[in-house]
Amino acid sequence: MAMDSVDQKWSTAEREIMEATYRAMLEHGYPGLSISRIAEQFDKSKASIYYHYDSKDELLVSFLDFVVDQFKTNFAEEIDEDPSSALNTVIERLVPLQMNDEEFQGRIVLIELRSQATRNEAFREKFTEINELLVTSICEIIERGIEDGTFRDVEAARVAEHIVATVNGSTIDRVTTNREVAPAAVRLSLSSYIDSELKSCQ
Amino acid sequence: MAMDSVDQKWSTAEREIMEATYRAMLEHGYPGLSISRIAEQFDKSKASIYYHYDSKDELLVSFLDFVVDQFKTNFAEEIDEDPSSALNTVIERLVPLQMNDEEFQGRIVLIELRSQATRNEAFREKFTEINELLVTSICEIIERGIEDGTFRDVEAARVAEHIVATVNGSTIDRVTTNREVAPAAVRLSLSSYIDSELKSCQ
Repeated sequence: MAMDSVDQKWSTAEREIMEATYRAMLEHGYPGLSISRIAEQFDKSKASIYYHYDSKDELLVSFLDFVVDQFKTNFAEEIDEDPSSALNTVIERLVPLQMNDEEFQGRIVLIELRSQATRNEAFREKFTEINELLVTSICEIIERGIEDGTFRDVEAARVAEHIVATVNGSTIDRVTTNREVAPAAVRLSLSSYIDSELKSCQ
Repeated sequence: MAMDSVDQKWSTAEREIMEATYRAMLEHGYPGLSISRIAEQFDKSKASIYYHYDSKDELLVSFLDFVVDQFKTNFAEEIDEDPSSALNTVIERLVPLQMNDEEFQGRIVLIELRSQATRNEAFREKFTEINELLVTSICEIIERGIEDGTFRDVEAARVAEHIVATVNGSTIDRVTTNREVAPAAVRLSLSSYIDSELKSCQ
């Protein structure tokens, strides 16, 4: 479903530009990003990028839209599982114990873009969407679990907010500090949180 | 104690430079920060800043050291309270329900600096220190609570990691999105987490 919406929404040319933007950011970081460097990634001229986007900022807002659609695709993949394992899968993806270099660089790029959202309203709206999407998706899994009796009758939105805050805090910690044990500690503590908040004590 | 260590460690001139740096960042943001703009904040010449610091980067690493010392001072102020209210006070300070404009801008500046830590090893070491300090301080409060019977015999370090991740995720959400209800939801969920993890079920 979500994959269809990516396919419908993005032309082949736009998708190529988005993927080239991502590769350019992985290679040069946000501070080193330019339209020239994006063009270098896929054998197109700068003019062909400017045909679709007026400025680097407009392109990057589109890129964040693309990220939102990718998130939707990733979340859609869990939808058929039972609530408890769906929640575990989501958390495993958001706080992986191991990351390869590209996954790690990808999170760095997202943090760099997010930091721009402090002063750029268009970026801010996109990160609002990303966090809303994460909270809503996790909330829906919890609500399904409450309905089918897997989880206790908690306030699903509050628990979802907590999980998303913890996950985002853990990601920031991972890409901006040398505290290598922290992700494992947070994964354990999130499991324990889910057990005690959603499953136990009754 | 911590206040003394700030006083001992920082000369009057250095403290003035640090405070001017903070004011300059509040006014211009990290991207607009320059030695000239720092000098504008306190009627000193650029040369007087270069007398203490060779470059903007060296000055900013020192600034992060200053932030670490400020954190120490703030945490030292809780030290005499009972564990349960000490933990509440710390969380109230880290996730305030209301912030004035200066407090909000201060968090934006910290996120901007933190984003630099993805690619700057000296910054990264300072943010490692800041997160270690938060985790250790909260861990100590929990351990005191376990000792005096306020809290259950939990793994204090894991609970402290969880609280710090949640707090940091909540701060990022606040300064990079328009989700105004999120801080209140996270405060509620943290209280609930502390109750169920540290206080209940036995």
